[in-house]
Amino acid sequence: MDFTLAAKTFSTGNSIAKPTELTGDLSFKEGVVEGALPFKETAAGWHGYIAWHDHPDWKELAKAILDAAQKGQLESPFKPGQKAYDDQMARCNAVGGIVGSRFSEYFMRLGPVLYDWPAESWETVKKEKSRNLQHVLSFPYNGEATKDDIVKEVITPNPLHFVRNHGNIPLIDVDAWSLEFGGLVNDPKSITFGQLKSAFPIKTITCTIACSGLRRKEQQLEALGDFDELINAPWTEQALGTAKWTGVTLKTLIDYCGGLKEDATDLEFYGADTYFKRNKPDNYIVSIPVRKMEDTIIAFEMNGEPLTATHGAPVRAVVPGYIGARSVKWLFRIKALSHPSLAPAQSEEYLYFTHQTGKHNYRWSDGFQIGGMPISSAIMSPKNGEVVYHSGKIKVSGWAYTGGSDNWVERVEVSPNGGADWYAVPREGITQKYWHAWRLWTVEVPTPAQGYLDFTARAWDANMNTQPTLVRDGWNWDTHVTNSCHHIQIYSLNITDPSTAARLALLHKHSAPFEPVHVPLAVEPEDEAEYLGRIERGELGREPVE
Amino acid sequence: MDFTLAAKTFSTGNSIAKPTELTGDLSFKEGVVEGALPFKETAAGWHGYIAWHDHPDWKELAKAILDAAQKGQLESPFKPGQKAYDDQMARCNAVGGIVGSRFSEYFMRLGPVLYDWPAESWETVKKEKSRNLQHVLSFPYNGEATKDDIVKEVITPNPLHFVRNHGNIPLIDVDAWSLEFGGLVNDPKSITFGQLKSAFPIKTITCTIACSGLRRKEQQLEALGDFDELINAPWTEQALGTAKWTGVTLKTLIDYCGGLKEDATDLEFYGADTYFKRNKPDNYIVSIPVRKMEDTIIAFEMNGEPLTATHGAPVRAVVPGYIGARSVKWLFRIKALSHPSLAPAQSEEYLYFTHQTGKHNYRWSDGFQIGGMPISSAIMSPKNGEVVYHSGKIKVSGWAYTGGSDNWVERVEVSPNGGADWYAVPREGITQKYWHAWRLWTVEVPTPAQGYLDFTARAWDANMNTQPTLVRDGWNWDTHVTNSCHHIQIYSLNITDPSTAARLALLHKHSAPFEPVHVPLAVEPEDEAEYLGRIERGELGREPVE
Repeated sequence: MDFTLAAKTFSTGNSIAKPTELTGDLSFKEGVVEGALPFKETAAGWHGYIAWHDHPDWKELAKAILDAAQKGQLESPFKPGQKAYDDQMARCNAVGGIVGSRFSEYFMRLGPVLYDWPAESWETVKKEKSRNLQHVLSFPYNGEATKDDIVKEVITPNPLHFVRNHGNIPLIDVDAWSLEFGGLVNDPKSITFGQLKSAFPIKTITCTIACSGLRRKEQQLEALGDFDELINAPWTEQALGTAKWTGVTLKTLIDYCGGLKEDATDLEFYGADTYFKRNKPDNYIVSIPVRKMEDTIIAFEMNGEPLTATHGAPVRAVVPGYIGARSVKWLFRIKALSHPSLAPAQSEEYLYFTHQTGKHNYRWSDGFQIGGMPISSAIMSPKNGEVVYHSGKIKVSGWAYTGGSDNWVERVEVSPNGGADWYAVPREGITQKYWHAWRLWTVEVPTPAQGYLDFTARAWDANMNTQPTLVRDGWNWDTHVTNSCHHIQIYSLNITDPSTAARLALLHKHSAPFEPVHVPLAVEPEDEAEYLGRIERGELGREPVE
Repeated sequence: MDFTLAAKTFSTGNSIAKPTELTGDLSFKEGVVEGALPFKETAAGWHGYIAWHDHPDWKELAKAILDAAQKGQLESPFKPGQKAYDDQMARCNAVGGIVGSRFSEYFMRLGPVLYDWPAESWETVKKEKSRNLQHVLSFPYNGEATKDDIVKEVITPNPLHFVRNHGNIPLIDVDAWSLEFGGLVNDPKSITFGQLKSAFPIKTITCTIACSGLRRKEQQLEALGDFDELINAPWTEQALGTAKWTGVTLKTLIDYCGGLKEDATDLEFYGADTYFKRNKPDNYIVSIPVRKMEDTIIAFEMNGEPLTATHGAPVRAVVPGYIGARSVKWLFRIKALSHPSLAPAQSEEYLYFTHQTGKHNYRWSDGFQIGGMPISSAIMSPKNGEVVYHSGKIKVSGWAYTGGSDNWVERVEVSPNGGADWYAVPREGITQKYWHAWRLWTVEVPTPAQGYLDFTARAWDANMNTQPTLVRDGWNWDTHVTNSCHHIQIYSLNITDPSTAARLALLHKHSAPFEPVHVPLAVEPEDEAEYLGRIERGELGREPVE
């Protein structure tokens, strides 16, 4: 019998939606009049980049257009948004279905210059990324690897690296590109691509980047939080990736600019992509504390290849240990400030709220800006819902990651019973430590129990922090940073159990499948005449006799 | 402002599917040849009743027909069943969608006598029952009241009483009907309807009947169990009802038959409906222990009205404290046995399995036959998913019930935080005790907390039994008897909280709805300029300064 040969894992097929090509609703054409609006691309060689940050009047005009379009066409302020949100939430459980037509509409309402950017961005993704990605949102494009793909290698192949865009994908010529330093630096300068690659010491770091929305789906399944302007995509457990990033440390470049003025506390990054907040466009702008310039890389290569457009070509920031939102792509300006960036992606998004704040009372000032990521882990195999055939031990594998500085993943444990007993991954079952990267792990977990089991994993960092027990322990209104113990439910078949072996042999004899689990047995579970005889003879007495 | 007037509860509209008329797939016509098959209704005045129990040859023939039809038409033994099961499970979350075409097909394949029974049964339901029922399964018909309807009165109005059929609904003339006693009684007799009503002391009891599948949906959402031949319908929390049942005690009638022979241990009930197990038809037959004849009523009235066809007219059993499956409808025969009934509804269904048994190894003999129901309760208001506006206390109401004998509901408690703190229902908040009926309750629960909250309830019986904490504590392969603490998730808005009051006032001013909760605020959560000023001035410092 095949099933006795080895402990095998079969997918029930209900884990992951097949990636499909999402095109969004690109049919909206009203208000698109050639030359009627002032919005222009900034310079030759910078396709998909409008310098909103230098044109406050353009930002206001764009907002006025979108406000008016929204008010004129809609019965209530959030009517179309509401429909879109509802559709999104309805499909939260089936990763792969969010189209992002609302965000597309923002661009397409603003005239011919922006009109094609959503469709072009999708073409870029199709050209550069693997067809095996799970699409979480088509525009802005958000996609992640499958569970099978992501743990094949410690270094994620570029086409499989997750993508979390906040707007369009600019296409910038290397030769046209420059990086401008300003604000509270002693000697503001501009650096060309050629200078960046040749004038400074080059450094390569192995670094995992994780989205702050990693594993958000678990929070959303617990309770719906904000589906904000940025569209809080229902990421599963693969919104992270690991690469060898090559570039120049930010400290080196700041030194080149004569160092920082005394009151500089934060470094603001400008990305060339266009992003909207409350109908107002801007470039994607966030900041990091000045101390992070030491290990932040201004990168031009990803795993030895030039950056692709999807990943921020020609140059991006890589901020180790921080949420991916700080590793700005299509980077063109860095400005030293005496405070964190006031731009909305820094000041009004990526905020971590307290438990008693929600839509009924939250203010931006009730949250804090998210920086370093906490210890987290997830099970990639088996998959949720699988029937697992085994001989008393179930092989479990996954990833573990922590952010921050001077920190790493120290230990991983797996529980076969929802957190009652824990089994550590042995030393030989986990990949090497990195200062800034994840570890992949595999462990065989003793599992005498059969039927539906709740498997869960937890990791420990160098300072002995571990993960919260329940999703609700860390649930927050913006559903960021899900790092509670990851749970999967499997159906365990211990083939060393004689009753199970006998049942599987019987099914095999009748060519009857075991799965789907809930479909009734195709054969009698025991000899009916014998069973009824036992009842008749009182051998299965239900009532006491005295 | 309207919302400050009182603590009000608004439905988010996502709780209950609207009842819709389910017709099933009644298009199957193959093999229906007039006169070609021997299956006949038993007697005039007994429409919808075939005496399968007296015709073992008919049972075998019917099984052969269905086996052949299945094998000839289907690629694998459970192919069509599987599709049906999958459809059912996919719709488990939306009560109201199970059509029961597989069960209809059993009837329609067996020739013109049975062909119209599924459709006729549905017509009977439509005529006799409330249009407000939630249909859980169209054929065999299963339906329950809504949460709002069920707690309006301690005595459930007949049209709202839940219905759990196992087959068709027979239409039996009172004048044709008789009840036959046999087996291990000293003096076997037959009783007419006239005799039953006039020759014996009449007794009325107030009795709650609950399906063993009550609250099954909670187990199914935890993990899919068997979707067996009987179709384990995804009942929510209303598969129970309370009525004043009038009739004659079974003890009285057994005495009339000269009492029981010494070795009689069980009393077997025969119902006139047709039910199928593994393609083999039979009448619906189960049994109860002889001790239960003391309080079992052979009933002909429900709340002072003659029984309707849907509820077993002209006569049914009512077995207090036991699962509804033992209160046989369309009763026509009672047989004393020296063991529990060997019929499949008793010996192969309604079995309670151990935790380590499942599809991989269960045998009927691993289960025990379910009798008395344990202590249970459920919250009927607020409803899962509701946004609740309140002034620091939330009004919660529901039902509590326990089965068994010499037992009753003693106490009910509600927790506003998933079982951490418990608040008892005060004496004046709960309806009177009955020996055999539920109690309805209301309690105001102190709730300072806001946002998504996990409310749960538990009841205590006279012997201080209470409910298990988690669904998984009692999860079993046949998903019977869900009595773990019932949980609902609400969104709490404490309007005495100044920050919430201010937010609601702001939304009111802008005519902006609060719900749906996950749709972004239509207004700024605080003054943006002031907030950004605080960041600029370092008042919200994220980094330590020394």
